[in-house]
Amino acid sequence: MPVNYATPAADQLFPVAGVRLGVAEAEIRKKNRRDLTLVALDAGCTVAGVFTQNRFCAAPVQICRKHLAGGKEIRALVVNTGIANAGTGEPGRQAAQETCEAVGALLGVSAEQVLPFSTGVILELLPVERIKAGLPAVFADLKADNWHAAAHGIMTTDTIAKAASRIVTVNGKKVTISGVSKGAGMIKPNMATMLGFLATDAGIAQPLLDKLVKEAADASFNCITVDGDTSTNDSYVMIATGQSGASFAAESDAGWAEVKAAIIAVSVELAQAIVRDGEGATKFITVAVEGGKDIEECRKVGYAIGHSPLVKTAFFASDPNLGRILAAVGYAGITDLDVDGVKVWLDDVLVAEKGGRAAAYREEDGARIMAQAEITVRVDLGRGAAQANVYTCDFSYDYVKINADYRS
Amino acid sequence: MPVNYATPAADQLFPVAGVRLGVAEAEIRKKNRRDLTLVALDAGCTVAGVFTQNRFCAAPVQICRKHLAGGKEIRALVVNTGIANAGTGEPGRQAAQETCEAVGALLGVSAEQVLPFSTGVILELLPVERIKAGLPAVFADLKADNWHAAAHGIMTTDTIAKAASRIVTVNGKKVTISGVSKGAGMIKPNMATMLGFLATDAGIAQPLLDKLVKEAADASFNCITVDGDTSTNDSYVMIATGQSGASFAAESDAGWAEVKAAIIAVSVELAQAIVRDGEGATKFITVAVEGGKDIEECRKVGYAIGHSPLVKTAFFASDPNLGRILAAVGYAGITDLDVDGVKVWLDDVLVAEKGGRAAAYREEDGARIMAQAEITVRVDLGRGAAQANVYTCDFSYDYVKINADYRS
Repeated sequence: MPVNYATPAADQLFPVAGVRLGVAEAEIRKKNRRDLTLVALDAGCTVAGVFTQNRFCAAPVQICRKHLAGGKEIRALVVNTGIANAGTGEPGRQAAQETCEAVGALLGVSAEQVLPFSTGVILELLPVERIKAGLPAVFADLKADNWHAAAHGIMTTDTIAKAASRIVTVNGKKVTISGVSKGAGMIKPNMATMLGFLATDAGIAQPLLDKLVKEAADASFNCITVDGDTSTNDSYVMIATGQSGASFAAESDAGWAEVKAAIIAVSVELAQAIVRDGEGATKFITVAVEGGKDIEECRKVGYAIGHSPLVKTAFFASDPNLGRILAAVGYAGITDLDVDGVKVWLDDVLVAEKGGRAAAYREEDGARIMAQAEITVRVDLGRGAAQANVYTCDFSYDYVKINADYRS
Repeated sequence: MPVNYATPAADQLFPVAGVRLGVAEAEIRKKNRRDLTLVALDAGCTVAGVFTQNRFCAAPVQICRKHLAGGKEIRALVVNTGIANAGTGEPGRQAAQETCEAVGALLGVSAEQVLPFSTGVILELLPVERIKAGLPAVFADLKADNWHAAAHGIMTTDTIAKAASRIVTVNGKKVTISGVSKGAGMIKPNMATMLGFLATDAGIAQPLLDKLVKEAADASFNCITVDGDTSTNDSYVMIATGQSGASFAAESDAGWAEVKAAIIAVSVELAQAIVRDGEGATKFITVAVEGGKDIEECRKVGYAIGHSPLVKTAFFASDPNLGRILAAVGYAGITDLDVDGVKVWLDDVLVAEKGGRAAAYREEDGARIMAQAEITVRVDLGRGAAQANVYTCDFSYDYVKINADYRS
């Protein structure tokens, strides 16, 4: 059961002018499962993406990077579930290439204008023929108000579909932003996991979009951890169609701050949904680190706390185990940290300062916070003005069960 | 149940001339428990240590560093369990200092000649009066053939006492090495965990011992991981009494290579015992990484595999889940790694090469290895001659149970 998350209703996921989506059952690995999704883009869009840093990156990630670098206008995204096409070497690249060619032929564009994405089991070859056979059905299903189906079409072992949408009005124009994501561990058992797609009908010049997708990922998908493992297929791609009539080319453009904030907010919502649906998760935890010299050290501390199996099992047990949190702060890698200047809160309860337990702290106050389904651990490093958040979940019996039992 | 480990019998733990050990029940936190250990050293010893890098390091670690840096001859080590004296600020340092003064008074040496160690729950003050009250009993218990009792005296929630001993003959002289260690997670629940002590009757000049303790720790205690958490109290201390008559001042001295190798072997045995007794461990895993450009990148890969909850749950499930291992290699942080050059073996079975599954690999071969209680994952990075090992255990339901249920 995800922690405080429900998929928005279909009519709460707003169409983005210039984007049509189609979903079909292609029997890529299993029957009776929507496993093929096509996103068709009108001419005139800008597209940018960020991809996994894993050296064993999947074939589709390699092709995506090549096609984005090639500079041809991107006109389609094709996503299959079931098989991740990772750890498949040259035959895998060939399979991804053929997929792009088939989509290109269908839409009347070149293969270089198609971005391929795969998610599912790794070390198995992609059955390209099944994808080709399924493409006419996804093509026939293409429509603008299909985000809800697309959110379901990209799911693998997610327990719930993940999507977010919002509308902002800037410069008198209505700008729509919609997105979908999938993933439940950084890697599912032997799955290659995290995908996110966001589209807006704002126009965003390529250099600004390139910058935005990195910033948005850093504030969202790069801030989450379920188990600390980085998948071979992680991708986050952003599309700007320009069809709202509101267009932006520079950070200083009027209205850009509002659009950017809304796009980042949707990104955060999509990323947090992955943590809320984290394997075995019973709690959603925000680690908010402030008072750092730079964002990097705030993130180090956030991840040390967010990755620690001891901290995560304590959250599962609703145990206000301050020692584990302090120890994680201490080993996060800030070599000149003055621990006497560090303060830690659970929500609004000050639990540690001056190198130890806060004088006024009472165990029952900590226990009360730890019993909640949503908890913020706030850490003030007391040495600067930088701030960063990390989002994580607890570590339960079910995490072990899911990952030890799974073999599909 | 520890994985393939039993405490050596008392008569297999050889006395080290110049070292006497005493153990007593001081009721520091619980009754009927040997919780206070004293190690008394004759004059003329050299002593060196390595300590936790955790910034929230415990008061006794701070005092140890000060006393070792002070240059006065160390004449005693005092170890209490129950309370770690970590996260206790200035009152904690005062408590450790008072402990040293009491030991010094008893032995007729100064407080600066005593090294204090504590292990147990953190964020609680050390009851110095109970330690003082217990000291006469440990003093009365001091004897050379007491390593077995000392191994038990430093245990907290370890399920088994950990000790190792060996004798080598060099330059016609018999050199004895004995050691004890404790710990079962990098941090036990809210415990501060890892302690190791080793003594030899070889004479080792201070600069050579300072170098040796770092090298030995890098090959042993710095190669193990149960949960990736670094405790506030981790300490490894080495004593050279010189009473065997075999003395060494330089790496080139005759016989030094043999003594050094034996000391490192005992260190590795003590460190591995901690992993074998790892919380919830059912398997002992050696991650042997070779073909790296330097040791640092081999260790990165070893730790990425050894820390991954997904890899560790796969070992628990006896699931030859190659994707998880390859993914961990890929995200270990070697940014220019050519994955097509990486090879992976489970024991002697080649499982992956050329960016994917090895052609001849059969799932049943992998499954056979994964069913064993001891498994070696060998990774050849194919880009150099450096090598490093990491030792770890699997990740079971019991790990979560132990860490979620514990609150003593």
